[in-house]
Amino acid sequence: MLITDLPTPALLLDADRVERNCARMLARASRMGVVVRPHMKTAKSARVAQLATGENARCVTVSTLAEIDYFAQAGFRDITYAVGATANKIAQIGDISRRHGAKVTLVIDSVAAVDATSGIAPVGAAPFDVLIEIDCGGGRGGVASTGDELVAIAKAIEVSPVLNLVGVLTHAGHSYGAPTVEAIADIAEAERHAAIQAADRLRKAGFEAPVVSVGSTPTAVFAKTFEGVTEIRPGVYTLFDLDQALLGTCSLDDIAASVLTTVIGHNPRSQSLIIDAGALALSKDLSAHKRDGRSHYGLVCAADGEVIDGLCVTNVHQEHGFVSGNTDYQTLTARHPIGSRLRVLPNHVCMTAAPYDSFHLVRGKGGAVIDHWSKVTGWQPASAAQ
Amino acid sequence: MLITDLPTPALLLDADRVERNCARMLARASRMGVVVRPHMKTAKSARVAQLATGENARCVTVSTLAEIDYFAQAGFRDITYAVGATANKIAQIGDISRRHGAKVTLVIDSVAAVDATSGIAPVGAAPFDVLIEIDCGGGRGGVASTGDELVAIAKAIEVSPVLNLVGVLTHAGHSYGAPTVEAIADIAEAERHAAIQAADRLRKAGFEAPVVSVGSTPTAVFAKTFEGVTEIRPGVYTLFDLDQALLGTCSLDDIAASVLTTVIGHNPRSQSLIIDAGALALSKDLSAHKRDGRSHYGLVCAADGEVIDGLCVTNVHQEHGFVSGNTDYQTLTARHPIGSRLRVLPNHVCMTAAPYDSFHLVRGKGGAVIDHWSKVTGWQPASAAQ
Repeated sequence: MLITDLPTPALLLDADRVERNCARMLARASRMGVVVRPHMKTAKSARVAQLATGENARCVTVSTLAEIDYFAQAGFRDITYAVGATANKIAQIGDISRRHGAKVTLVIDSVAAVDATSGIAPVGAAPFDVLIEIDCGGGRGGVASTGDELVAIAKAIEVSPVLNLVGVLTHAGHSYGAPTVEAIADIAEAERHAAIQAADRLRKAGFEAPVVSVGSTPTAVFAKTFEGVTEIRPGVYTLFDLDQALLGTCSLDDIAASVLTTVIGHNPRSQSLIIDAGALALSKDLSAHKRDGRSHYGLVCAADGEVIDGLCVTNVHQEHGFVSGNTDYQTLTARHPIGSRLRVLPNHVCMTAAPYDSFHLVRGKGGAVIDHWSKVTGWQPASAAQ
Repeated sequence: MLITDLPTPALLLDADRVERNCARMLARASRMGVVVRPHMKTAKSARVAQLATGENARCVTVSTLAEIDYFAQAGFRDITYAVGATANKIAQIGDISRRHGAKVTLVIDSVAAVDATSGIAPVGAAPFDVLIEIDCGGGRGGVASTGDELVAIAKAIEVSPVLNLVGVLTHAGHSYGAPTVEAIADIAEAERHAAIQAADRLRKAGFEAPVVSVGSTPTAVFAKTFEGVTEIRPGVYTLFDLDQALLGTCSLDDIAASVLTTVIGHNPRSQSLIIDAGALALSKDLSAHKRDGRSHYGLVCAADGEVIDGLCVTNVHQEHGFVSGNTDYQTLTARHPIGSRLRVLPNHVCMTAAPYDSFHLVRGKGGAVIDHWSKVTGWQPASAAQ
């Protein structure tokens, strides 16, 4: 099968690039003495998770119950659900966990959230392992590593029949907004420091905290040390995107995911090509453009993956994209006739890849589709009782 | 079943509102002498399409091959695919059409696009009906109603073995950006004028043009006459959203779709609630805010659907939303404890509803879930040969 045989829009995955991205992070983590627990909210694919965890680990991070179910079914036995879990979800997670024989670790960041689990019947003999979420500066969730709340949460967990404290977790999401790679390295150090400080305080207060979990792609790439840390949880590095390239964590040649699209029209009024990848196929995420000042919905490549300098998706409607930017309209339309294929590199791949239920794997520039890898979509588990 | 039994995030549909929205448009179209061919890119649901077409019509507009397949399977026999179709899709559409015994009408807007279909083998004895797309001012696609290209396309279609001209189609997408309802009425008149002018020119040139198709929700609501028009294709009116409410085509009480979410945390640093509806569950579409100057990702309601004045989703991450805006943090968290439910009214419902595979139907304020309606997602047909 060739990519010209694929229906469009379709999500392509460059095999060489995803393998290289995953191998590079595994090698770096190995050198620095930490385990990679990749955040699979980006790729949502068991085959990518296998590359990202190597042959032995089989431990992943996820963001939805659908992902817990999908990865547990695919044989991942050690899953961290890195979104605050409330009572309605914990019962369902227990069900998935028993069904597939997988351990699911939860995160929690308040005494109120621990108390909210009090009505849950204990899940057999085994309570859920839980990590206390620490805010290392991002402000999305978590408690301070220095305040009283940290130990208060540990004490509340200690008396809970459904929760078992195993350590701390933090996520430096604000590293995505760092102005320079030096600033990312500083954020990485603050992320590490917050996590080990919180773990130390718990240990001094008499609690066990074997797990010290940090991570985001920028901090995983630029941290100078992970001393005291046990695992890192980057995710977007598996696929990379324009936002990461502009941030400096990858080059354009590392971006492994792209959207294959067909030229479906020529639009003289806007002097652009019309493609069948619009707001749903690319997402309307513009986060990459906090840096480069140009607002567009993706960088356009030839069907073989070669970037076409200056050609962008300049506007989107629900199922229409508009492409222009590098040449006059006559040349543009002559080069890209109706029916021809292009690829689009995504601004923010977590948003772009989410709605697709498979990756079509390509290797090299020949256009051969060598495999199709499943992906999970949506929120609800396919197999668990609703 | 109660909405408190639903896993979150989930897509709710208020039965009274969707019934009223659909009935009102049918009554208006009937009074004005046109057929409603609802654009199902918004609701993507056969049950909503039944409400929107009434008992007799069963004709819809769609934007993907997955929708063609889903609606054809659901018994809709007259489907307009309102996105330019290229050779790779036409073969697949022919397959779906034969499989389900449905007629699929295509749109085309250039001689080059007609020429690009020349390699396609004729589909049995029946060519595809095709409408020439007219640009009535939106500039997204289509040819001018006044230029030479219009008749040139008709002549190219005349010699094509796979295409059969049946009329013209236009879409005043720019009505979404109109500053006042008077401006929308003017755009509606320009939309009508462009369509009937194009149809008249085709007829004078010797072609038949029985179908004169116009439509967008704003122009369908505010047009003063549809004289010369045979059908209208509004879509978002079935569900409505904040963008439409701010535009003036509906009131907040007409918005039928909302996202049910759970409070999963309290965040003192941002003085907000954290909910489990983030960038994927709500979309990052901010189009509603070209008007109201406030940038947020949705208006928050109590679980019973009552709008909580001033409470908004102020920020989103992939699976986290942040809610604040109407009161101090202590009152906010006391009113909305962890585990409690809220609903979010969407900025742009076409974007928000797209990833969900079902609507959970609710009626009134009691919180009873009275039915579950399927929706189609993604791009590829579930049943057709790939």
